Order: sequence, then structure tokens, then C-alpha cells
Amino acid sequence: MEKRYLFTPGPTPVPPQVLAALAEPVLHHRGPDFREVYARCLGRLAEISRTERDVLLYTASGTGLMESAIANLLSPGDRTLVVSAGYFGERWAELARAYGADVDVLAYEWGETPSASDLEQRLDGHSVVLLTHSETSTGVVADVQALAAAAKDAGAVVAVDAISSLGAVPLETDAWRIDVVVSGSQKALMTPPGLAFVAVSEEAWSRRGSSPRFYFDWQRTRDAQRRLDAAFTPATSLVVALDVALSLLREAGLDAAFERHVRLGRACRAGVTAMGLELFSPDDDSAAVVTAVRAPDGIDSGELVLTLRDRFGITLAPGQGPLKGKVFRIGHIGWFDVFDIATALSGVELVLAEGGAEIERGAAVSAALDAFERPLSVA
Amino acid sequence: MEKRYLFTPGPTPVPPQVLAALAEPVLHHRGPDFREVYARCLGRLAEISRTERDVLLYTASGTGLMESAIANLLSPGDRTLVVSAGYFGERWAELARAYGADVDVLAYEWGETPSASDLEQRLDGHSVVLLTHSETSTGVVADVQALAAAAKDAGAVVAVDAISSLGAVPLETDAWRIDVVVSGSQKALMTPPGLAFVAVSEEAWSRRGSSPRFYFDWQRTRDAQRRLDAAFTPATSLVVALDVALSLLREAGLDAAFERHVRLGRACRAGVTAMGLELFSPDDDSAAVVTAVRAPDGIDSGELVLTLRDRFGITLAPGQGPLKGKVFRIGHIGWFDVFDIATALSGVELVLAEGGAEIERGAAVSAALDAFERPLSVA
Repeated sequence: MEKRYLFTPGPTPVPPQVLAALAEPVLHHRGPDFREVYARCLGRLAEISRTERDVLLYTASGTGLMESAIANLLSPGDRTLVVSAGYFGERWAELARAYGADVDVLAYEWGETPSASDLEQRLDGHSVVLLTHSETSTGVVADVQALAAAAKDAGAVVAVDAISSLGAVPLETDAWRIDVVVSGSQKALMTPPGLAFVAVSEEAWSRRGSSPRFYFDWQRTRDAQRRLDAAFTPATSLVVALDVALSLLREAGLDAAFERHVRLGRACRAGVTAMGLELFSPDDDSAAVVTAVRAPDGIDSGELVLTLRDRFGITLAPGQGPLKGKVFRIGHIGWFDVFDIATALSGVELVLAEGGAEIERGAAVSAALDAFERPLSVA
Repeated sequence: MEKRYLFTPGPTPVPPQVLAALAEPVLHHRGPDFREVYARCLGRLAEISRTERDVLLYTASGTGLMESAIANLLSPGDRTLVVSAGYFGERWAELARAYGADVDVLAYEWGETPSASDLEQRLDGHSVVLLTHSETSTGVVADVQALAAAAKDAGAVVAVDAISSLGAVPLETDAWRIDVVVSGSQKALMTPPGLAFVAVSEEAWSRRGSSPRFYFDWQRTRDAQRRLDAAFTPATSLVVALDVALSLLREAGLDAAFERHVRLGRACRAGVTAMGLELFSPDDDSAAVVTAVRAPDGIDSGELVLTLRDRFGITLAPGQGPLKGKVFRIGHIGWFDVFDIATALSGVELVLAEGGAEIERGAAVSAALDAFERPLSVA
């Protein structure tokens, strides 16, 4: 009977229409019913990715498609520069090392925001640059437009992990000259986990390397998709669900989604601050995807997350890596509104107050609602 | 309004209880609700695979996990022997070549049944032998017990593609000394496509090679699973559905499932033959997974499949590779009963009769029902 609230930065809440589509009888992946859905999904993924290129759809987690970028682009010894400021930046580096690349890391402390001028100075004939758009572990959304421009001007191929950003914050794949954009179903695309996507530029295509690959080989999937076929049996039920989710997103409009995420970020930060807590993620409109909050002194953020789950069925995300125990994270991605923010903040407030923390009661929700209602100054 | 009938050898029909589970709100993959389901699924997968080893669960198609076997076991130049008698045998060879293995193929005509004595003669210091249990393209189920014994006695590590066989026909992973068993959700396990599994022996574990790998790296997934975690966000909704499907399978019992598949194969063959058509797959109880049927002279089997789909909403599978246009395939896997066989045969009968083929009307369904009802002589 207990209500459950999923407020993590992935998986994210899935609208009932999308869940209902999952329960439809299974379609054969080579039948006409499925091909129609498949074609529509592929077209809409390209639309949302703001690209004229093929978007390749795979059954895998987002990491699988980060690996596709490495396996298709890099040959052993290729000079690769990773811009890393958190868990997912480190994953790029691990992946590139697993394929024997010669990896340099422009490493920031977790929570810092990478800068294009640092990148410019660090670039030195690297053939591939690996970027993270929304660093889900810290809440930082990097300026990938500026970062990609620096890397492209230096002649590198640029791959961006946009897994938690696509559909939440603006990302102009073609206009920003990003060669490879990796994303996933379980964040702003409001679909359960299991599907991931990659858009690949002609330049990246022509610079593919010699690493072994089969399932994640781009050529196999592009060839199949161009005949409206799939190279390997896809997760058909998830594709049918994604089709419904993309219709919902398209109906409301991408710009509306971006605006909503900015307002949700504002609401969350205003509430957190009003409660007397300290933000870990930046206190500006870039942080529209996930809000990382420092736990008050003497409180373990992991314990707080467990208590919220046990007491109220509210799932937040704990800190990862060096932030374990120190921060908790509220994801506000996809099918999310301000009342979800209010619920998350109310839960945190109750648990902290019960634990004796100095929390100004009731302030968080009002501040959040106010911040959400304030018009955006920027269109 | 039109009813749809999915009679392909994957995806297969999914019971309504399993579909309903897909529509449940999404769980977080690190929350206690999901961990409980996950632990149960992993345990039941091992049970059904008849193994004491960890069964590693991935979000991918079956081919992805065939690749995991190659990427984890083979280093470039490793001598590998593939036993191939159809589409999926050829896939093993393609995969091994993509990783630079030194590949020999014990090649049979599509539709032939591999023999252990041929394998014995061909083995010559190969480090890995790749086998197909149920060759979905032809309907042949190989005697992997005998084949694996020959390969093991010669000192090779043995990997078996059991994607369409696991849960449909007996497979004793540990007792038959099979090192690596790959399977998938969308066949006899009555779940939509998107999850795949691999069981790995200690010997295979100790003989892992140097090929680059990350997503499909066994170590990462085993380490995570042993903490009841997942290395990468899994397709949580599919895992919840699989849990329900495995409960259903377990309740009825594996032996009952095996017996049902034998009877379904008998029924299908009896019906096909009574109609005056010629079987392509073997006419014996081994062919319990999929029945391949030759199209009558002058009829393209691909056209027949399309017509069945358009006229009656019945989806059968066409022939692949050299069998394109020549055979059609009726899958009878998983959530399937004799009335499904009757429906498939009735549809084929109607379409062929309308096309002017000489078909004995009405004989197929009676023969199928009779064959299904006859008790199995073997327990």
C-alpha cells in the first residue's frame, strides 16, 4: 500500500502511458508493426538529439554505448584526452584504458566545472577527446559547446556522454560539432533502463579504429537500421515504450522540457538552502539535472538515504566515490514536477529534524514552490 | 481488434502475468525492493541452468553474451574450433574472427546434425570449442552432451549457445562439463527480449584472455553481483518480469516444460506431415524447439510468411541465409500449447489451399492434437 517515490537521477519515474505500453503483447522485431514503431523512434531520437545523422539504438546500458565510442574510435596507443570531474568522467578513462589507449586526464576535483581554456591548454595532438555533459555524480552540467569547440579546433574527434542530459538540457549535436553523442532511455526520456543510443558524425565514422568489436560495432547496426532492421534482437517492449515517451516529450516540446528542468533545479536549490542545508552542486541554472546536497555535520548521507527509503518509500541517491557519506542527490529528470521536489524536500526535512538537526521547518517547500513559479528571465 | 499470434522462435509469447509485471512502477536498481527480485532471479537462473556457478545477467541480446564468451576467453591468435550447421553457428565464427582468433570451422550443411565423432577427429589442440545447442535457423538440437565431452576430453574450454534451448530441452551445465552457457530472456524463459545470461566454469574463468572488454567483462559483473549490485544500470523492468516468468516455470517444473516441448514438436511435425508438406528439421523428438518446413514447390516461403501475417495476424519465421524463400519456421517455445500449433497449422493450410497447393484439408489439426495427446514413452 505504501507509496513509492523514485527521485534518483536514473532510473527516473516513468509515466503511466509508457508503463502501459510495456505491458502490450510482444511484437516480433522483424514484423511490420514493430518496424513502424522502430522507424518513428529512430526519427524522433535524431530530432531530440538535434542531428541529421543516424542515431543508432542498442539494447544495453549507457555504459555499453560509451564503450561503443571507445571500441569504434580508438586503436591501441591512440592518444586520448578525458575531461573528468566525477564518477562518469572516470568511467571514460577506465574504458579508454581497457582498450589500450594512451590516456591523458584533465582531472578536476569532483564537483568542479571543467573549463574550455584548461582544455585548450592541455590539448596536444590528442586524436580523441571524451567529455561528460551532465556529471550525474556531482550535479555539474559542463559547457560542452565550448569544450567541444576547443577540442574540434585542435583537430580531435569529440565524444560526449549525454546520458543524463539528453532531453533535460540543450544539446546541439550537429551545431556544436560534436562527433559522438551517447545517451540512454532511463533519464529524461522517461523510459525504463535498457536502451541506449549513439549519434555518430561522418568524421568519427571515417576515423574508426582497429579495436575488436561486434555487438557494439556501429557499422553492423547502421547497416541494419537503414533497412529498418536490427542487427540483433532488440528489447522490443522497451522500444514500444520509448515510442510513447518520445511522443509525450515531443507533444510538450523540447523547449518546455528544458525550461521545466531549469525551474525544477531552481526549486530544489531554493528549498535546500531555505532548509539551512549546503549545496554541493553549483547554485546556478546550469545545474538543472540533479541537485547534490551536503549532509549536515555528523550525519552520514548514505544513512539518510536509507532512512528516507524505509520510512517514506522515498528513494534519493547517495554520494559516490569520495562523496560517499557526504552528499545525497535529488534527481529531477524527466517525468517530474515541483510537487515531487516538495515531497523530496519534506522527507529530508522530517528525517533530519527527527535526528535533531537544526532545520527551519516548513521553509523548504514554500521556497521551492516560489522559485518554481518565478518566470525565467531567459527565454 | 485483430488478434495477433506470435509463433516465431524468439521473441516468443509472454504470459499476461509477466506483461503485467512490466507495467509496474520502475524500481531503483540499488534499492532493497530490486535487490530482492534480483537475488531471486539470479538464483533461479542458476537452478534452471543446472549449475552451482554464478549466472551473470546482462542487459543485451543473446549475441552480446556470445561476444562476452569470445572477449573473455580468447586472445588474438588463439586456436578456436566452431561447430557450425546454420546461422548461429556462423555467428560464433564471425565473432571469434572479429577478435582475431585463429578460427577453424567444422562446417555442416544447414540442417545437418553435428556429430561428436566428427568433432573428435577434427580437434587438434584447439583451446576453445564453440557449440550451438538449438540451431534456431534449422530446428536442429545438437547433442551437446556428447559434443562437449569430446571437446573437454581433448582439453578445450567449451562454450555453448543455449539461447533458444535453455528451459525448452534438457541442458546440464555442470554435469555435462560445459564451461560457458549463454542464454537469453526471449525464448523459453517467456520474457521479452533484452536480458541475456552466461554461466562460467572455474576452468573458463582461469583461462580468460587479453582481449579488450568492459561492459561484457565477466569480472566486473561477477564482482557486482556478489554484492547484489549490478555493474551497470540493468533493465530493471525486464528483470522484474523475468522474476515472474521464472516463478511460473518453476511452479510447473522444468521436467514438465521439457515434456511439453517434446509433445509440441511431435504435434507440429505430425500436422505438417499430415498436410502433405515436407519437414526440413529432423523428424524426431530432438527437434522440440522449432519446426522448419519446406515450402511446396513454386511457393516462396517468405511470401507465405507475409501473407499469414497480413491475412490472419499470424507471425511465423521465414528461412535465413541459404534457406531464404525455401523454408518457414514455426517456433513452439515457452508459453505455448497445442492450440497454438493448431492455429499455426490452420493458417498455413488456409493460405496454401487458397494458393492452389494440394493440401489435405483438416488433416493437420487432428494429427497434431493426436500426436500431442499420445503419452511419451520415455519419462
